[in-house]
Amino acid sequence: MKREFMDKDFMLYNGTAEHLFHAYAENLPIIDYHCHLSPKEIYEDCRYENIAQIWLGGKQADGTYAGDHYKWRLMRSNGVPEELVTGDADPYEKFLAFAKSLEMAIGNPMYHWSNLELKKYFGVEEALTEDNAKQIWDKTAQILKDDPDMSVRGLIRKSNVEFVGTTDDPIDSLEWHEKLAKEETGFKVCPSFRPDKAVAITKAGFKEYIEKLAHSVNKDKLSTAQEVCDALNERVDYFVARGCKASDHGLDYVCFRNASAEEADAAFKKAMKGEALSVEEAEKYMTFVLLSLARKYHKENVVMEIHFSCHRNVNARKLSELGPDTGYDIIAKSSCDKELAMFFSELEKTGELPKTIVFSLDHDDLNQIATCLGAFQSAEVPGKMQLGAAWWFLDQRDGMEEQMKALGSLGLLGNFVGMLTDSRSFLSYARHDYFRRIACNLIGKWVEDGEYPDNEKSLRKIVEGLSYYNAKRYFGI
Amino acid sequence: MKREFMDKDFMLYNGTAEHLFHAYAENLPIIDYHCHLSPKEIYEDCRYENIAQIWLGGKQADGTYAGDHYKWRLMRSNGVPEELVTGDADPYEKFLAFAKSLEMAIGNPMYHWSNLELKKYFGVEEALTEDNAKQIWDKTAQILKDDPDMSVRGLIRKSNVEFVGTTDDPIDSLEWHEKLAKEETGFKVCPSFRPDKAVAITKAGFKEYIEKLAHSVNKDKLSTAQEVCDALNERVDYFVARGCKASDHGLDYVCFRNASAEEADAAFKKAMKGEALSVEEAEKYMTFVLLSLARKYHKENVVMEIHFSCHRNVNARKLSELGPDTGYDIIAKSSCDKELAMFFSELEKTGELPKTIVFSLDHDDLNQIATCLGAFQSAEVPGKMQLGAAWWFLDQRDGMEEQMKALGSLGLLGNFVGMLTDSRSFLSYARHDYFRRIACNLIGKWVEDGEYPDNEKSLRKIVEGLSYYNAKRYFGI
Amino acid sequence: MKREFMDKDFMLYNGTAEHLFHAYAENLPIIDYHCHLSPKEIYEDCRYENIAQIWLGGKQADGTYAGDHYKWRLMRSNGVPEELVTGDADPYEKFLAFAKSLEMAIGNPMYHWSNLELKKYFGVEEALTEDNAKQIWDKTAQILKDDPDMSVRGLIRKSNVEFVGTTDDPIDSLEWHEKLAKEETGFKVCPSFRPDKAVAITKAGFKEYIEKLAHSVNKDKLSTAQEVCDALNERVDYFVARGCKASDHGLDYVCFRNASAEEADAAFKKAMKGEALSVEEAEKYMTFVLLSLARKYHKENVVMEIHFSCHRNVNARKLSELGPDTGYDIIAKSSCDKELAMFFSELEKTGELPKTIVFSLDHDDLNQIATCLGAFQSAEVPGKMQLGAAWWFLDQRDGMEEQMKALGSLGLLGNFVGMLTDSRSFLSYARHDYFRRIACNLIGKWVEDGEYPDNEKSLRKIVEGLSYYNAKRYFGI
Repeated sequence: MKREFMDKDFMLYNGTAEHLFHAYAENLPIIDYHCHLSPKEIYEDCRYENIAQIWLGGKQADGTYAGDHYKWRLMRSNGVPEELVTGDADPYEKFLAFAKSLEMAIGNPMYHWSNLELKKYFGVEEALTEDNAKQIWDKTAQILKDDPDMSVRGLIRKSNVEFVGTTDDPIDSLEWHEKLAKEETGFKVCPSFRPDKAVAITKAGFKEYIEKLAHSVNKDKLSTAQEVCDALNERVDYFVARGCKASDHGLDYVCFRNASAEEADAAFKKAMKGEALSVEEAEKYMTFVLLSLARKYHKENVVMEIHFSCHRNVNARKLSELGPDTGYDIIAKSSCDKELAMFFSELEKTGELPKTIVFSLDHDDLNQIATCLGAFQSAEVPGKMQLGAAWWFLDQRDGMEEQMKALGSLGLLGNFVGMLTDSRSFLSYARHDYFRRIACNLIGKWVEDGEYPDNEKSLRKIVEGLSYYNAKRYFGI
Repeated sequence: MKREFMDKDFMLYNGTAEHLFHAYAENLPIIDYHCHLSPKEIYEDCRYENIAQIWLGGKQADGTYAGDHYKWRLMRSNGVPEELVTGDADPYEKFLAFAKSLEMAIGNPMYHWSNLELKKYFGVEEALTEDNAKQIWDKTAQILKDDPDMSVRGLIRKSNVEFVGTTDDPIDSLEWHEKLAKEETGFKVCPSFRPDKAVAITKAGFKEYIEKLAHSVNKDKLSTAQEVCDALNERVDYFVARGCKASDHGLDYVCFRNASAEEADAAFKKAMKGEALSVEEAEKYMTFVLLSLARKYHKENVVMEIHFSCHRNVNARKLSELGPDTGYDIIAKSSCDKELAMFFSELEKTGELPKTIVFSLDHDDLNQIATCLGAFQSAEVPGKMQLGAAWWFLDQRDGMEEQMKALGSLGLLGNFVGMLTDSRSFLSYARHDYFRRIACNLIGKWVEDGEYPDNEKSLRKIVEGLSYYNAKRYFGI
Repeated sequence: MKREFMDKDFMLYNGTAEHLFHAYAENLPIIDYHCHLSPKEIYEDCRYENIAQIWLGGKQADGTYAGDHYKWRLMRSNGVPEELVTGDADPYEKFLAFAKSLEMAIGNPMYHWSNLELKKYFGVEEALTEDNAKQIWDKTAQILKDDPDMSVRGLIRKSNVEFVGTTDDPIDSLEWHEKLAKEETGFKVCPSFRPDKAVAITKAGFKEYIEKLAHSVNKDKLSTAQEVCDALNERVDYFVARGCKASDHGLDYVCFRNASAEEADAAFKKAMKGEALSVEEAEKYMTFVLLSLARKYHKENVVMEIHFSCHRNVNARKLSELGPDTGYDIIAKSSCDKELAMFFSELEKTGELPKTIVFSLDHDDLNQIATCLGAFQSAEVPGKMQLGAAWWFLDQRDGMEEQMKALGSLGLLGNFVGMLTDSRSFLSYARHDYFRRIACNLIGKWVEDGEYPDNEKSLRKIVEGLSYYNAKRYFGI
């Protein structure tokens, strides 16, 4: 049977899947526990002029480039000149160039996400093509102008979002979160703690960052690695007092080199003097700080999220022209072999391993990470150690299915905390819908194939769990 | 069409698959060429009190923990306290906690194995849930008590097992195998030779083990690496005289560092004095001993089995509390790149490469191993070099399919020696049934899709081969 | 519905796939931009005596072994003695041994390729088996003898081939290409530039090769690394003047160690004196030469093809008995992590990155390579950086689907330049048919599942593009 494009049963290829999705998954609220939305924009309830502004962005007032680098990459793959990607070209021309690229992007998750967003937020029923680009441009512009609910807060409410976890620097004052907490928004916005800059001792700007961190705890300077840890702990307290439920760590690679405070300190002092560090020295400092943070998270019941295996900004010319985070990152084949397990084991020795979610960027890592997490589960909470949803380059239908199959085979799918958007866009909630469809389809297929019984009670518990309740319980929302 | 859960055509999704399974695969005897059953328990024809005892085990009289660590991991992933996993809790409470966990374990091979075992050995038709746990507990207890065939030997006979290959230490007296050989059991039990402790020169207990090995060949001590090889060879002879068909090697990783007897010996002497060895020294000794053993296996027509890519006991706290092999192992991303090929090439130079089966734990290794084996096939026997069945963390439907596809694409599926249980449980023979269904389904799908002709003669040869005859021929049973 | 084996809708499992293939893909000409055919044999319009000669080959007049090492491996996996594989046995006996092996090779691409060739070129409708081998032998022999179109040129024309890109050494005089260019063949044969021997500084024969390279540009000797680059550049000009569109680089692994001309030169001089080089020295020379070549390719609009991750001739005994390229190669797990990106980035700095196709041998590399290429796309040409078709050990249905899914998810499938044979046989064009079926099936399934709209215009553009037009445009044919 040939199906209509993206109809109400999109991605649901069997009757059980359709039933599970529409009966249990579709209408549950969204817990978006990890995203990159701006609390300031939420507070100010911004509006957009046109779809190019939302989707493609471009050069900002401060000279940096902001927008969806997934879409930028797609356009570059179609030979679109940079002028029409991040440049100052006419917004409609940029949108048209994107439409042409999208039409050729069969098999790309961008194809689904973009068309789902057009359908969900603008009522567009046809897939975007070069031919209908003008008509869709006009329709979306009209709606963005006329519909009072097409503001940032309106979009979040319309998407049935209960919780938004932003990503924030430890030195952030969280002023916008504080202001938002006093508003009647209909949803909750909480900060997440992302201390990468205090960990990455060999990266440019480390010294300057440590100075800012000192100021954030009202000190002139931080003199030892232990003082860095103390300052970070103080900032964790500050965040927790403002609703923080989670931290996030983006690591180039996972290292584990257990060190004394003295050793970590020696590395720290070298770095603060601007001296070059050996890999060993850097890893000693990083391990020391990460262990300290993990212990603090455990104490404060903050979830630790870990991302790794990415090389960033590999195109030097483009880095100098456009800056970081503009679509020039690649999967790293860095071998996290035993290090993650050693890190967990060290924490587990004293019962200080926090709830942890590890995200995989590469399908090759899924099974290994799943087995590693399985060796550190405990009675503290069901599914304490979580294999995170398919991330970034893996965040598509096949990647999501692989992640759920890996978790199902080697862990316990029923306890999965499910999807996050990881997004900078207020239209991205369509990805939760996408995920729930894919999950229901996978589960429905197992049932129809006689591989899991057609037991309504169990199935409802599983489907509602990974759509909503597991995350609610896990993050304590 | 929605199928009933686990009916007679479970995992058979097309008519050809159903036909091939029921006509050719289903009723063939089982050659279980690699397992961890206790010959003593077989000789003594033990019985069990309840299903928790069989499935979950627990603390043994000697203070160690024995049981199915797959099931333990599953329970821990569901937040079950250790008391109910390996602890002294009431057996029914443990079973109930397992039932609750299993209900959430959609997509887990454990879900199928457990329910297949309940169906096959206890006639339970419904899938185990929290709700029916008590009823199933009572039913299984009754059968275990009343049915005279629910003893160890009865279970083996009932499973249509023709051959059981146990896993034994070179210093084992094989007294239970000798006693069993004199009994009329209806099946054959033979030892397999697993000399890991004599190879792993850097592991704790090496020195003590070498002393025991000396005693097993009536010597006071072994003074050189060559004497270790001689002792092992003598024990291979002892095993072969008692029916041994196979050896097994569990390696942390595959190394190849060809060394002279003097170099191997220098490393050996350092280890025996309790001195620390460099990686290079250790690898020289290990390569020397493995080459010696492989040559002996070739001479005696003993199959060499090789497993690798596993980090064991990574959770230090649990290792100290529960000991090894209690569910805290993970996939290793250790890179076996060229080493396996170098090992085979060295043996092939003198025509002394034995029949070899290499097992993969990680789907990422399958294709590489398959191509490596393809470079060392010979006219000695069809399929001399075997890509082993999906192992441990890969031992599920998707893993089995990937293994058969890798072998099919890069080798010759028709010569595959098929499934093994690798199990410590007398109920695990259901896994052979599971494997045969998955194999018939894969083959049936190729036929129904017009990718292989509907040629009854060829198909029968292939299906019967990988269910039974290939292993029978390969191991000489 | 059970399908007939290899009927007209072979590999097309849905109506949309059937329509797309038969309406748009099936009858387009073939651009075979990378193969190993002999221009001399094309010029001489050779004929063959029997199917064993075409398929299995054997020992050549010059003492080397030539033939299809895929087929040789398959036979060895079935325990066929070498006498019947590459040896002097009776041709029919060799063919019969191959037929027996093929019958067991369910799931092997060889099964499809061989039977597709029998059907396409000889009208054989039944799959080859032991039972019908004699009859098929006779039929093919008759046709090879009687049919005037069964010569090399006839086979190429019959296959609707528009362009043949051979693989040639930089020192080749290209005399056969020059002669062919003057003939009315009905298709175009152009050389490709493969300078591996001038790059691989540590391999046996390097020094002698450099001397030959010097002679090819009318010099007595090449004294510096820069002179090697200059000589290669001169040969690129020579090739381009004779129609060359592409170069090819087979690398053991991808290295990037940027070096000054002096450093590269120091390494070169050591090598020319026969001294051993450190890894660092060798990589400096190789990086220097590869960068120089890439810049030249960019200038001359020559496509750069890169293959890696293969260990060759791992079976030392067979290497000494049969020589290289006789079926003893394996997948390498060498880690190309950041090096490829560093190489591209260096070239991109000065705008000298050529059009590049990177081929993957291992499914584990696909996603990483795809993301790496995505970071270097540009407006020069749509799809400037190409993820090459599944190669060698990955060149089967599942590998092709994985490659297209990786490209679809992480790049832009619509710009894919599609299939190549990489073959030494004049019957291999059936692989283009195979590829087109698999591509249409994948695309058709997405449409039937409602994941891409049933938009005839877009689909036609995509299907015709990856069958023919994208390659035609990309290579400038």
